[in-house]
Amino acid sequence: MTDTARAGSKNILLHEVGLRDGLQMESQVVPLEKKAAWLSGLLGSGMDIIQVGSFVHPAKVPQMADTDELFRRFTLDKKSPAILSGLVLNEKGLERGLACGVELFCLGASASETHSLKNTGMGTDEALARIIAAAKAAIAAGKKVQVSVQSAFGCGFEGPISEERVLKMVRAYAGAGLLNISLADTAGHAHPAQVERLFGAVLALGPGIECTCHFHNTYGLGMANMFAARRAGVTAFETSFAGLGGCPFTKVAAGNVATEDFVHVLQLEGLRKEVSLDSLLEVARDAATHFGRDLQGFVYKTGPIKVKAAV
Amino acid sequence: MTDTARAGSKNILLHEVGLRDGLQMESQVVPLEKKAAWLSGLLGSGMDIIQVGSFVHPAKVPQMADTDELFRRFTLDKKSPAILSGLVLNEKGLERGLACGVELFCLGASASETHSLKNTGMGTDEALARIIAAAKAAIAAGKKVQVSVQSAFGCGFEGPISEERVLKMVRAYAGAGLLNISLADTAGHAHPAQVERLFGAVLALGPGIECTCHFHNTYGLGMANMFAARRAGVTAFETSFAGLGGCPFTKVAAGNVATEDFVHVLQLEGLRKEVSLDSLLEVARDAATHFGRDLQGFVYKTGPIKVKAAV
Repeated sequence: MTDTARAGSKNILLHEVGLRDGLQMESQVVPLEKKAAWLSGLLGSGMDIIQVGSFVHPAKVPQMADTDELFRRFTLDKKSPAILSGLVLNEKGLERGLACGVELFCLGASASETHSLKNTGMGTDEALARIIAAAKAAIAAGKKVQVSVQSAFGCGFEGPISEERVLKMVRAYAGAGLLNISLADTAGHAHPAQVERLFGAVLALGPGIECTCHFHNTYGLGMANMFAARRAGVTAFETSFAGLGGCPFTKVAAGNVATEDFVHVLQLEGLRKEVSLDSLLEVARDAATHFGRDLQGFVYKTGPIKVKAAV
Repeated sequence: MTDTARAGSKNILLHEVGLRDGLQMESQVVPLEKKAAWLSGLLGSGMDIIQVGSFVHPAKVPQMADTDELFRRFTLDKKSPAILSGLVLNEKGLERGLACGVELFCLGASASETHSLKNTGMGTDEALARIIAAAKAAIAAGKKVQVSVQSAFGCGFEGPISEERVLKMVRAYAGAGLLNISLADTAGHAHPAQVERLFGAVLALGPGIECTCHFHNTYGLGMANMFAARRAGVTAFETSFAGLGGCPFTKVAAGNVATEDFVHVLQLEGLRKEVSLDSLLEVARDAATHFGRDLQGFVYKTGPIKVKAAV
């Protein structure tokens, strides 16, 4: 799988999700032209995977109504090696995604029964079975697939989620041959010790499993959790430009881990230096201007650390 | 040493520095009565050490002009087991601190020549020698002492600071019998891999050395650095209520790691559950009200994670 090869060569695979997880949380709908400008900037930065949007009902999530059109603009005459991903939650979304050129399908089910019922009208078992079926259909259509467990570290409705429940879902995915697995901290409840333990347990389930992490910064732990996930062996990281997005269960806009903040610290370690931090900062600053407020990222405000010599 | 015993029994020693590192960064001077109210709240929370203020020239730092008086109010008839600390940068400060009942003297010199010259008018070698002499005088007076290396992870003026320069200062402290050693990330340049490496090197210098860490959140790495320091064996942690304070080299108020955010995550791990998070949240919320703006802490805004059962 191409993703594996890239993760292997670069150690860390960067998946930008701001156009989806960020913009779906904003009350104002961002015009298509602005989304296209940000997507161009992100493509130019050298991110590995960029999530363009989600395929959900436009009446329910008007922020994502133009996802199909945005994909078409960039997939018809693609110049960047970045993989374009789309979030799909049901069969109808899969159909739309196949029609407009999605390259990586991100599909997921929640580990929380309440969260699952509220989001999909189905309990976790039924939702999981349908997601597995949709993922298999995407693979049959020649597409890459990432499957996720939402609310894997705790739920805004239910509170703690048992690790066994998460592992049961991961075993179901792996048993269906779906080995590119993301654990998402939908509520932001994850803490580093838990992150290291749970990802360690997931990776121990099989040598073919590759893990992606997705942390919300609701309680100020997003970046610490990224490092805990790295330590556990996670190699793919979802982040959002300017730290847009975050937990849907609280009114506080605590955001995702900001892409440019994560790339900044990786580059302090000497990693991923070919990614253009300047391009990422430009997109983040433009987003702050567009929304007219301080966003959650740090480095777009402070500027990067000026390192005159190697540390 | 009492501190050692406490760190041993509780694993993690909590040192609240908001009244000093937080308030010195605020353009408005906080009235004595308000400081006293926050100090009372912090004492009631069960923090191990609370920094009351610094002993610097009142004309230079008017925010700290009433440090002596604030100490006297609380040391004359002390009801809490918390240790009250004060920051001292010269002999005059030591004299003032001894006169008003400081229990733990925090003294430090910068690893950056430029930072040292700007702050003290002395280069690092001279500043270090004077700090060591003052620390010995404090010990001779029967006081506890913590010595620090400021700008240990990078400098806002000079950029990178060589690890050997930091280790040289630590060896000088240890050689003088000063084993309670703090590394402060004055500029916020520290990143987790560096933190783990440098604290590891410091702790390897001698079995008697105990380390404290102090991170500014300028680039969004404060909390991740706290976890890296824990992993390296650091047992004492400086934080600031509501995340007040931070890097003096940038105009951006990126803050310290917020005390209540750190206690919150420790309690998710089952640690320090006897500390009253509610009391800390009350102080942080009152600070946000007092300053009339959003401060950097997360949990005082979101409220703690509601854990219905053990995670």
